Amino acid sequence: MSAFAPDPRLQADSVFIADGPLSQVRLMNDRRFPWLLLVPRVADAVEWIDLDGGQQRLLLAEINRVSALLRNEPGVRKLNLGALGNIVRQLHIHLIGRHERDPAWPGPVWGNGKAQVYETDALSARTEYWRQRLR
Amino acid sequence: MSAFAPDPRLQADSVFIADGPLSQVRLMNDRRFPWLLLVPRVADAVEWIDLDGGQQRLLLAEINRVSALLRNEPGVRKLNLGALGNIVRQLHIHLIGRHERDPAWPGPVWGNGKAQVYETDALSARTEYWRQRLR
Repeated sequence: MSAFAPDPRLQADSVFIADGPLSQVRLMNDRRFPWLLLVPRVADAVEWIDLDGGQQRLLLAEINRVSALLRNEPGVRKLNLGALGNIVRQLHIHLIGRHERDPAWPGPVWGNGKAQVYETDALSARTEYWRQRLR
Repeated sequence: MSAFAPDPRLQADSVFIADGPLSQVRLMNDRRFPWLLLVPRVADAVEWIDLDGGQQRLLLAEINRVSALLRNEPGVRKLNLGALGNIVRQLHIHLIGRHERDPAWPGPVWGNGKAQVYETDALSARTEYWRQRLR
């Protein structure tokens, strides 16, 4: 058992947006997709079923909130939700807005090509955009 | 609004196992992975957030049950959960047991190669195996 901290690879690939009741909300630094992560602040959690009932209900509420925002993003036609953890074992939930002309459609985003990182100003702007929405 | 029926592509790719409180539990006909589907019996549901609170709690209980079974399958080291729907829009949740020597590791199973279907007897045996466990 150890204190919670986001895995270094998650820290490298995404930016902190806000703390929800259970999870850190983070923006994936990949401008190909509107892509947010929920990282429950539960030390050593690997699987969804490592969360207890109360934690799962908090996570569900966070998924609902972020999903509703993503569904309203311009062009989004489908939501993708995934909890894989084959590379980074720390529990994290991906929520991604998809459409028929995005570079991975209709496949999954994971393992599809290389991330196109935001330029510095654009990343700041996107971070602020999501912070406002998740306030 | 229409009555619930599993999408024809889900029916072609998977086999009915059992009815949970909310969802049909189905076995994907791909012997490369222990791979189950939950298909909520909710007509016209596409996204997780199309379910109401009570339906989401039932789905969560089903995910917990199936996940616990999958985690106990021989060789399983990681669970993957996904709700994508880019090809089949009808809401369905994938639950897959993964390990480091499976053919898609560490990538996602979706879009990875071609399904290796079970032979007839093996499919009957696996179906019966999962029916017993989900009884």
